[in-house]
Amino acid sequence: MLRKEKFSDKAEILTEAIPYFLRFRDKIFVFKIGGKILDYEEAFETVAEDIVVLSLVGIKPIIVHGGGKEITRFLELLGIKSEFKDGIRETDDRIMEAVEMVLDGKMNGRFVSAICKKGGKAIGISGRDNFFFVSERVRGRVGTIKSVKADDILKIVQMGFIPVFSPITVSREGLSMNTNADEVACELAISLSAEKLIILTDEDGILDKDNKLIKSISDSEAERLISEGVITGGMIPKVRLALKAVKNDVKKVHIISGLIEHSILLEIFTDEGIGTEIVR
Amino acid sequence: MLRKEKFSDKAEILTEAIPYFLRFRDKIFVFKIGGKILDYEEAFETVAEDIVVLSLVGIKPIIVHGGGKEITRFLELLGIKSEFKDGIRETDDRIMEAVEMVLDGKMNGRFVSAICKKGGKAIGISGRDNFFFVSERVRGRVGTIKSVKADDILKIVQMGFIPVFSPITVSREGLSMNTNADEVACELAISLSAEKLIILTDEDGILDKDNKLIKSISDSEAERLISEGVITGGMIPKVRLALKAVKNDVKKVHIISGLIEHSILLEIFTDEGIGTEIVR
Amino acid sequence: MLRKEKFSDKAEILTEAIPYFLRFRDKIFVFKIGGKILDYEEAFETVAEDIVVLSLVGIKPIIVHGGGKEITRFLELLGIKSEFKDGIRETDDRIMEAVEMVLDGKMNGRFVSAICKKGGKAIGISGRDNFFFVSERVRGRVGTIKSVKADDILKIVQMGFIPVFSPITVSREGLSMNTNADEVACELAISLSAEKLIILTDEDGILDKDNKLIKSISDSEAERLISEGVITGGMIPKVRLALKAVKNDVKKVHIISGLIEHSILLEIFTDEGIGTEIVR
Amino acid sequence: MLRKEKFSDKAEILTEAIPYFLRFRDKIFVFKIGGKILDYEEAFETVAEDIVVLSLVGIKPIIVHGGGKEITRFLELLGIKSEFKDGIRETDDRIMEAVEMVLDGKMNGRFVSAICKKGGKAIGISGRDNFFFVSERVRGRVGTIKSVKADDILKIVQMGFIPVFSPITVSREGLSMNTNADEVACELAISLSAEKLIILTDEDGILDKDNKLIKSISDSEAERLISEGVITGGMIPKVRLALKAVKNDVKKVHIISGLIEHSILLEIFTDEGIGTEIVR
Amino acid sequence: MLRKEKFSDKAEILTEAIPYFLRFRDKIFVFKIGGKILDYEEAFETVAEDIVVLSLVGIKPIIVHGGGKEITRFLELLGIKSEFKDGIRETDDRIMEAVEMVLDGKMNGRFVSAICKKGGKAIGISGRDNFFFVSERVRGRVGTIKSVKADDILKIVQMGFIPVFSPITVSREGLSMNTNADEVACELAISLSAEKLIILTDEDGILDKDNKLIKSISDSEAERLISEGVITGGMIPKVRLALKAVKNDVKKVHIISGLIEHSILLEIFTDEGIGTEIVR
Amino acid sequence: MLRKEKFSDKAEILTEAIPYFLRFRDKIFVFKIGGKILDYEEAFETVAEDIVVLSLVGIKPIIVHGGGKEITRFLELLGIKSEFKDGIRETDDRIMEAVEMVLDGKMNGRFVSAICKKGGKAIGISGRDNFFFVSERVRGRVGTIKSVKADDILKIVQMGFIPVFSPITVSREGLSMNTNADEVACELAISLSAEKLIILTDEDGILDKDNKLIKSISDSEAERLISEGVITGGMIPKVRLALKAVKNDVKKVHIISGLIEHSILLEIFTDEGIGTEIVR
Repeated sequence: MLRKEKFSDKAEILTEAIPYFLRFRDKIFVFKIGGKILDYEEAFETVAEDIVVLSLVGIKPIIVHGGGKEITRFLELLGIKSEFKDGIRETDDRIMEAVEMVLDGKMNGRFVSAICKKGGKAIGISGRDNFFFVSERVRGRVGTIKSVKADDILKIVQMGFIPVFSPITVSREGLSMNTNADEVACELAISLSAEKLIILTDEDGILDKDNKLIKSISDSEAERLISEGVITGGMIPKVRLALKAVKNDVKKVHIISGLIEHSILLEIFTDEGIGTEIVR
Repeated sequence: MLRKEKFSDKAEILTEAIPYFLRFRDKIFVFKIGGKILDYEEAFETVAEDIVVLSLVGIKPIIVHGGGKEITRFLELLGIKSEFKDGIRETDDRIMEAVEMVLDGKMNGRFVSAICKKGGKAIGISGRDNFFFVSERVRGRVGTIKSVKADDILKIVQMGFIPVFSPITVSREGLSMNTNADEVACELAISLSAEKLIILTDEDGILDKDNKLIKSISDSEAERLISEGVITGGMIPKVRLALKAVKNDVKKVHIISGLIEHSILLEIFTDEGIGTEIVR
Repeated sequence: MLRKEKFSDKAEILTEAIPYFLRFRDKIFVFKIGGKILDYEEAFETVAEDIVVLSLVGIKPIIVHGGGKEITRFLELLGIKSEFKDGIRETDDRIMEAVEMVLDGKMNGRFVSAICKKGGKAIGISGRDNFFFVSERVRGRVGTIKSVKADDILKIVQMGFIPVFSPITVSREGLSMNTNADEVACELAISLSAEKLIILTDEDGILDKDNKLIKSISDSEAERLISEGVITGGMIPKVRLALKAVKNDVKKVHIISGLIEHSILLEIFTDEGIGTEIVR
Repeated sequence: MLRKEKFSDKAEILTEAIPYFLRFRDKIFVFKIGGKILDYEEAFETVAEDIVVLSLVGIKPIIVHGGGKEITRFLELLGIKSEFKDGIRETDDRIMEAVEMVLDGKMNGRFVSAICKKGGKAIGISGRDNFFFVSERVRGRVGTIKSVKADDILKIVQMGFIPVFSPITVSREGLSMNTNADEVACELAISLSAEKLIILTDEDGILDKDNKLIKSISDSEAERLISEGVITGGMIPKVRLALKAVKNDVKKVHIISGLIEHSILLEIFTDEGIGTEIVR
Repeated sequence: MLRKEKFSDKAEILTEAIPYFLRFRDKIFVFKIGGKILDYEEAFETVAEDIVVLSLVGIKPIIVHGGGKEITRFLELLGIKSEFKDGIRETDDRIMEAVEMVLDGKMNGRFVSAICKKGGKAIGISGRDNFFFVSERVRGRVGTIKSVKADDILKIVQMGFIPVFSPITVSREGLSMNTNADEVACELAISLSAEKLIILTDEDGILDKDNKLIKSISDSEAERLISEGVITGGMIPKVRLALKAVKNDVKKVHIISGLIEHSILLEIFTDEGIGTEIVR
Repeated sequence: MLRKEKFSDKAEILTEAIPYFLRFRDKIFVFKIGGKILDYEEAFETVAEDIVVLSLVGIKPIIVHGGGKEITRFLELLGIKSEFKDGIRETDDRIMEAVEMVLDGKMNGRFVSAICKKGGKAIGISGRDNFFFVSERVRGRVGTIKSVKADDILKIVQMGFIPVFSPITVSREGLSMNTNADEVACELAISLSAEKLIILTDEDGILDKDNKLIKSISDSEAERLISEGVITGGMIPKVRLALKAVKNDVKKVHIISGLIEHSILLEIFTDEGIGTEIVR
């Protein structure tokens, strides 16, 4: 029998992760980090750590972040009122300026900084730079994505950087547009045929009619749960985007809580996971 | 004799630029675009155009922008008072947050957007991302540069992108810091042994004691003009940084006006130039 | 309003060319430079300048030159008579030797030299070297092209050189052959799926029945003009080759005059152009 | 406070390893796996796992193995007697054949196989192939290393393979030679300026005069311990080789037990370590 | 007339080989070196020389060797009996250990060494390393090939090495298996779409019913000769593998004698050849 | 004993060349092919064959050719008189035109063609193209070399081509100049630190005072032979250039006869050689 030492358990955990390391090597994982999580300073920390771990074991993470609550606070500070329609804020020119200041000037930097402090090579990029995410006007300054410059994003990833995108898009004419961050992450994952799209929310995942967490769900089952009214509210558009993703060559979508410590690593590196996975 | 056509003159101008194209091919030009210029919507346009032209004829531009006036306006809006010391705003945590929102969330985007609309592949990056510009605390949240991650910046340039940096730096601990944009541009140029450091201001260049523009000046002459009190005020630290640059392998520094139409192209592609060049 | 300076107009012309620079970046342009133009020392100069400009803004030019008149002069000097049939000189072994001496030993050098003097990285290559252009005997030493070693030509272009080919081809057995330069250029453009094939002649382009220049013409219209006898003489085989090119993936063929100053730049970088373009 | 889940501790261990991952990324670690450890089937397993973990987090492991005991057994089976001198078996032609059969035909395969089963891309190579390790005759078929083909070994490592070398070397004339495995590992580490040389034995490390494990020791201290007779027996040549390595640009040498579970990971990824490290 | 010197004939032979050099440049040749040939020390020498010549003129050789007789001798020495069934030794665990010791620990080294001594960059690799050749159990430890890791083998070849594989394969679970060397060579050639599969035996090739060597034979003719009983004994499975190879994109299979001096060069570099070639 | 077959001797010759192949792999050999040899159609053939063999076994040949006699003939045909001074023809503008027509339009093509027919990837390039060889005016149109664009020549070689240069150089202003071909070859060899400079003449090499061929000679001995009057006439400048070459990092210079069949291969691939080698 081999002798065990004080930290042998720690070492064992590393070796237990080998099959996961092997399976996901060089694969692209797109993360959507929800606005609400960004309110918990502490969540930041472990999410950043988890992403750095992934990058160090050969996975290629790309992040899209939100920031809704912070925008609301800033608009209130400025005395500007805004309303939501179909899950996205009605955005005029003045609100758009505030959206950019909060997303590109505050939220993006906070997240990039958290990753860099842990040793990750993160760079923050506005989704509208270089026409990375081109959108079409829905109304006002709200846009829906028409194309993603996947080649240029891949180049940045292959140089070893972890790109962190704000969900600002750009019209063909070059005007910045406000786009739903879930949509940005979903279209990004599709354009890169990502291995995984991981949506971090402040909920545990999809719950069944008895309010129990569903571990895994197929696209058809998800559609049924929506039609039966089990999936409701803000979760509906998230699930719809997840379904779009798995139907367009994204291998798996995960909806997990960002408020569970190391939820990302737990979802990826344990067999049980801790949220809901959606597969085709 | 060859026949001339309506636009022959235009074609001739292109061919006259050949020697300049050849001389500067693949060379790195660092631009500091001053905050004041950024107030003139029109100046933006031609500066952006000029930079796109440079990138298309094989020059590698990198931009550092300022944004002081806009920060002042925003601080006033928020009812925050701030003072300047040694050419840089005294910065506490609350002011720093405002600085980032204006620089990363507004000014950076405006400039990147202007270049992208003209066809340039610009991406905006906060100087603090990826520990690109590490600074040491001077006081409060004001920092002075200690190191530049030149290798990573070169990688981005060599992929064909035009990086546009905000003058936000980062302490070794990961805290964002406010740093003078001229200093950021100067240290960047030195770290890359740039061919040129071009400082765009709202003045025509260095003036002599008769208020006439000095076309070209050596480092020793510049030092004499400072000591004789000919160079004064805000121009002194700019000239000091220029001298530091030319003493550290930057081939030439240009101080030119951003308010003259196409001043960049005129300075680079005509023999007379339109501003002041500082050489060793 | 921005201040304008003496040369602002010049700068503006550079910026107006941006869309053209962007559109043609890294694209291959094949040029046929007609023998007659090569008689005008002055034409040389601007053609060479134009080609260097193209290469400096990222376009990949490849040149095929003619040299008929000069061959005739040399044959006369040697007291050798020769006749033309179907637009190509009847060529026996003795004439072939003279053809090579003039094309490879005189005309090629003159053109390469003109480009190099302007700063272009031109290298002159006989079309028969390395079996670049393999031809099949038509009669005597006259050959028609059977294959082009496009891969090797691309390699030379991608190293940054501007290849200048003489229209000498080679039989499968290694015997040098005389081939129509228009045909060489056309087959080269087809083999590389060139963006443009530009034929420089001493005429302005294709004229309509009222002797007015046709700016743009489709392949079917061109065929109609030939059958109606509007296009006549030496222009017929040129147009037929142009039609072959556009039917085989060359995007556009231009027939322009080499005797207009900077005709190449005017045709490529202005919307009106100065010759005739043939499109599918 | 973030919610903790069942496996949160596991995830935390991964994130605690980040600083080590960052420090050792792309660094070369040379391992000597002692013959005695190779007798413990179980030790194999965790050593192989540990090496696969290292390779997956970006470290470049290269292995040299021993196999003395197994050779002795095989020689006994064949009825051949052999003696040791200066820590290496006296080797004639007949014994050499047996040495190769055991090392290349049995021990090498066992270790390569263990790594491959865990997911590592190991390939077994005899140290004499391709003149990788050229030795000079000491006596009989015993050789001491004169040169290492470091370039070719680097190529194999950079392709992503984990080379596992048997300690067979080759004379300049191409004759296979028996060489001490510690020496092979030491010279390999020196030739590659390895980050670490890790010697796995069946002892815990270097013990002080009170038989307590010495955690860290400088080269001068080690020399003193040898001269004072504290370090004795088979540990002396190992320590001498370790000293040679640290004096020749190998950053650190570790002498650790292969009989402690996951000793490699514990030594590398914990601050205390579990063996002795020798530094300059 | 050119003067001839003493060695002019030698030079002429080199130049006569040009067409063969040109035809086979960068092509992959898979060699099976039969166990029986490996018994003739002398045959080794010229086979090794021939393979080094091929590698130096740009051909990419890969070798699979046998070693049956030597295994038999070793088993006898150990007092172990073994039987053959369908051309492969019935193999239990004890026999497998002996097989590996002989193939990986003796035969492989002998062949690698012979090539290296002549200047070739040979490295010996067990077919089971890195799961290069995965097999499925037939019975006991006898396996038949299911997959070949062609990409990794190509990488090794493209780095300039000559891989020499022992015919040991590996089960999906990582257990080493005994596989017919002809089969290993055949599957390797197929997986790489090799230009040639060259089987070196101790016979001259395929003989017709009058015992005369057949120079060239199509697949259908070969099948006829088997059914007519002309091809018999151990040659039948060899021919069947050859037929499988040519039906699966291997251009040509050669069955030649390793006992004719320089048989490889003679077969490849002369028009007549010296063995039998099998084509589709 | 191995059986020998009809062509075994041929195969043996190939294997005897292995050590030479190994020694010269990837090395640059610069050849000067003298004008006089170019008069012998037959010499062409074997020289071309020899060069193709070298290129196929991994050597990188570059050729500089002469052509003096042919120029004289052509000038006579044109009724132009010319004189020699210091081993180079006095050259005015009219003569220069003739020189170019003969060298670039006739001799270059003949040699390129001979190599291509044998399968070599030769391309003929005038030494003046791309400012490859820049010279300074001596008098009239005679120039002496000032710089060689070695980087660009290396690029062409590394793409796999065999460049064949005519000895035309170019003044800094772009005027073609007549330069001694031995000098061109010598400067080329120096600029590339070539392994060998091989000068093919119509003499057997350097003869001693008894008219016997000197096989090998040091630089100091050569200088002595010149001062003693043993080396005379046209051989003096050749030897002086050879001395310059070996003093400037060219490993060896060979002066050999092009009129001995396969003299290149004999000199390189046999120990005795057939001409004179000059070493430092």
